Amino acid sequence: MERADDAALDLLFREARTHSKWLEKPVPDALLRQAYELARMGPTSGNCQPLRILFVTSAEAKKKFEPCLSEGNRAKTMAAPATAIFAMDMEFYELMPRLFHDPTARSWFAGKPAAIEETAFRNSTLQAAYFMLACRSLGLDCGPMSGFDKQKTDAVFFSGTTWRSNFICNIGYGDKSALHPRNPRLDFAESCKIA
Amino acid sequence: MERADDAALDLLFREARTHSKWLEKPVPDALLRQAYELARMGPTSGNCQPLRILFVTSAEAKKKFEPCLSEGNRAKTMAAPATAIFAMDMEFYELMPRLFHDPTARSWFAGKPAAIEETAFRNSTLQAAYFMLACRSLGLDCGPMSGFDKQKTDAVFFSGTTWRSNFICNIGYGDKSALHPRNPRLDFAESCKIA
Repeated sequence: MERADDAALDLLFREARTHSKWLEKPVPDALLRQAYELARMGPTSGNCQPLRILFVTSAEAKKKFEPCLSEGNRAKTMAAPATAIFAMDMEFYELMPRLFHDPTARSWFAGKPAAIEETAFRNSTLQAAYFMLACRSLGLDCGPMSGFDKQKTDAVFFSGTTWRSNFICNIGYGDKSALHPRNPRLDFAESCKIA
Repeated sequence: MERADDAALDLLFREARTHSKWLEKPVPDALLRQAYELARMGPTSGNCQPLRILFVTSAEAKKKFEPCLSEGNRAKTMAAPATAIFAMDMEFYELMPRLFHDPTARSWFAGKPAAIEETAFRNSTLQAAYFMLACRSLGLDCGPMSGFDKQKTDAVFFSGTTWRSNFICNIGYGDKSALHPRNPRLDFAESCKIA
């Protein structure tokens, strides 16, 4: 295949929108798993794969999550079929001997908090982007947000673990009738240079 | 369209690989522009769009870039048709009055270096991931890397500007015959939980 067809480009990029209102249509766990299984194929530095995802779907987990959300993100998140908490494993490097062919990879990070932080943040964010585009490729809609209390979220869900939250994303089937016009995007000439 | 077809999922995720060897086939500037025009549609926090890209393509720019690269990334980068330096505009918030409907958006960042840093890093990384998948959707191959000297790169290319480098990515048509077997990926059960 030389390139994706226009229908796929529309689905992933051109016509995909950030949603805040959700149709009454559940998201099967199997579909979240399929999205992860596509997203995990994307590249990370030294194949380090620091992304961890907690899917908040049950009424009980939603109730625990609600006070962690900024006010403007609360109602739409409570109404979403699922919310992904994109987290990063701050001990991701412990798995690198299994994930990467270079046996010294663990030593690039162990005991080096700045390198751990930068690599976990950059690569979990990359993987979260792959995951959101994978969701879209499966017909799901996304509503990513960074308006939430990370410390509170970590205390509620990740206490006693090495997971730390990065950002969050509602997942479901968006109600297109509730969309506002799309915000403008920067032109190539404003954002890019060729040297 | 309900979901992308298998050919598109293969192209973007399942069969796409990180490449280090490149076919002798140039990458037209127009294709880099098309990839940007797809990628820019992806979501960012408050539509802040901090990503900036310098495409290193000319012999002269490559020569300036060469000493910024870690030794293991030098030969493959010099041989690549193009290298994207994914950068972030540390004054991205100056454009928010034009990009986002909330007129207070600029004030969330102006004079707040920690908020600027986190938002620029997270969102430029998201946009770089969208860009890499957009490249793949157009039939291009990518080889992302973080092994380079960011300070030196900023001094060489971004001196006197508000752009700062994040990570880099070779772009071209990969030589599939030079690929090693794919490194393992983490299973859903290792990386994800449903609550």
